[in-house]
Amino acid sequence: MHDLDALFAALRSGDRAALGRAITLVESQRESDRTMANDLVSRCMPYSGAGLRLGITGIPGAGKSTLIEALGNALIDRGHRVAVLAIDPSSARTGGSILGDKTRMERLSQRTLAFIRPSPTGGHLGGVAHATRETIILCEAAGYDHVIVETVGAGQSELEVDGMTDLNVLLLIAGAGDELQGMKRGIMESADVIVFNKADGDAKVRAENARRELRGVLDLLPLRPSGRKAELLVASAQDGSGIDELRSVIAQRYQEDRASGSVAVRRAEQSLHWLDRAIDLGLRDLFQGNTVVQQRMAAVRDAVRNGSLSPFAAAEELLVLFRTGGALRP
Amino acid sequence: MHDLDALFAALRSGDRAALGRAITLVESQRESDRTMANDLVSRCMPYSGAGLRLGITGIPGAGKSTLIEALGNALIDRGHRVAVLAIDPSSARTGGSILGDKTRMERLSQRTLAFIRPSPTGGHLGGVAHATRETIILCEAAGYDHVIVETVGAGQSELEVDGMTDLNVLLLIAGAGDELQGMKRGIMESADVIVFNKADGDAKVRAENARRELRGVLDLLPLRPSGRKAELLVASAQDGSGIDELRSVIAQRYQEDRASGSVAVRRAEQSLHWLDRAIDLGLRDLFQGNTVVQQRMAAVRDAVRNGSLSPFAAAEELLVLFRTGGALRP
Repeated sequence: MHDLDALFAALRSGDRAALGRAITLVESQRESDRTMANDLVSRCMPYSGAGLRLGITGIPGAGKSTLIEALGNALIDRGHRVAVLAIDPSSARTGGSILGDKTRMERLSQRTLAFIRPSPTGGHLGGVAHATRETIILCEAAGYDHVIVETVGAGQSELEVDGMTDLNVLLLIAGAGDELQGMKRGIMESADVIVFNKADGDAKVRAENARRELRGVLDLLPLRPSGRKAELLVASAQDGSGIDELRSVIAQRYQEDRASGSVAVRRAEQSLHWLDRAIDLGLRDLFQGNTVVQQRMAAVRDAVRNGSLSPFAAAEELLVLFRTGGALRP
Repeated sequence: MHDLDALFAALRSGDRAALGRAITLVESQRESDRTMANDLVSRCMPYSGAGLRLGITGIPGAGKSTLIEALGNALIDRGHRVAVLAIDPSSARTGGSILGDKTRMERLSQRTLAFIRPSPTGGHLGGVAHATRETIILCEAAGYDHVIVETVGAGQSELEVDGMTDLNVLLLIAGAGDELQGMKRGIMESADVIVFNKADGDAKVRAENARRELRGVLDLLPLRPSGRKAELLVASAQDGSGIDELRSVIAQRYQEDRASGSVAVRRAEQSLHWLDRAIDLGLRDLFQGNTVVQQRMAAVRDAVRNGSLSPFAAAEELLVLFRTGGALRP
């Protein structure tokens, strides 16, 4: 507990190494670390929540790192402190494909007002997302008023991000078929701002055309929780065009959403959603850790797989074992 | 148990009233009925699985009932026995908006080789889907070799259907913006056959154009589990065009998938998925029924909602109460 006091104090004072250690604690899957991590996050919570939580997603090659570098620098130039986190479920296998190489954000990573943290490696998406959500709290308590969560738009991870951010930016490349790649996965439905990126040189006209086309499509999508449609922008991190407009659109939407109370409502819903999920995961751990259940599980799954046992009858049998099996008693 | 013997025998003999009673048992949410229902479904399982399980989805107005009437009659004319079920999560409120009115399938409902059952009313989507999955087993054991599950393409329900069918048909109306309505919800990804329906009179040309346009879009979607792209058809239940082609495409795909073993693999995966889900739901019931947890739940949720407690710390606290709270002991 003494250690935790010191860690908390150092983190609050803005000590970057302490923030790094705190995040490592939160990412740990060891039982003993979980208790400390929960304590630390609970202590940080009163000092969190004032800043903007921004999701940035896009398929590999959409220019996420370069855009975050440009946007992050623009924010710091205006006096903000920026933390950049990543959710990358593939990092368990690849060793981290996004933000793994900090040199991709060369200028940003050298600024003292920026903090960059790659995706935790190991563990399933649920665990990675859980750690990232807690890391947002830690970063805010450490004084970062902008937390950017980067994710590859390749499946579930951007939905996880939507469960922890105030606003989301989707990056597309005009003409690469990305419009539809985004749409088919429901990613577009969770975007507040859609940016046609890499719109420099010849690509600028293509990007403008794509923006016009997409406008019609957006009419068919449900509105964002804030009651607005997604904003469509064209930008290039290369020549810097559109970056300040992006920064300004984000700031304006965020201010409006804070004023209307929709940020508060959204965050309360997110928290309750995470509570339910954490309970479900915890119950599953309890169940799978039950030795009586374990002894029967393989045979039951085989019977369900080959069709000789109904999945519902099988579940009932295992749940009775769980309830009466004794392993739950203290 | 004597009752169950009689019910099972009557169901196996093809007694429609017995099948109706069996389904009512499976739909019941009473604890005592659940045990009997599990017994009955387990007994039926060895006699199930030989037939085709077909999902048919589309937004209201896409012409689902009329198409199912036409397809069902075509199947019966070729010697098949057809059961039609519905999953409609809204039926709890509306009293059943699909299949509620059997007169919409006037001819089919009068044929002795057809069995039509509206969506169970009451209960959440998970419960409705669970009952429908068990009803498929009952219908197959009662001798129906085609079970058609109808759903409104309006959210989660068609994903539920994808978890219990061998093949899925999506109905669209050309020019109604349905192409995108289908796409945005991921429905298109679970379709094996997409039918531009109501393609009669002037609408035929529109439907043909829409089919051509959609073909390009489909190249961007992932393949179905069978390794194929969705088939695109044009049909009208009104003038009967395209119905036999639809029947024949479905039959051919199904035969190929059975021969390749992909039906068996898909069903095994579906069963394991339902096992995991039934366990999760059962665990949640246990947890929410725990009196010690109940006493603390409201206060914890309030604290999470207003941001004074981390959802993960809150979950941990409740899980400890659950594990040690005593209510689990027999």
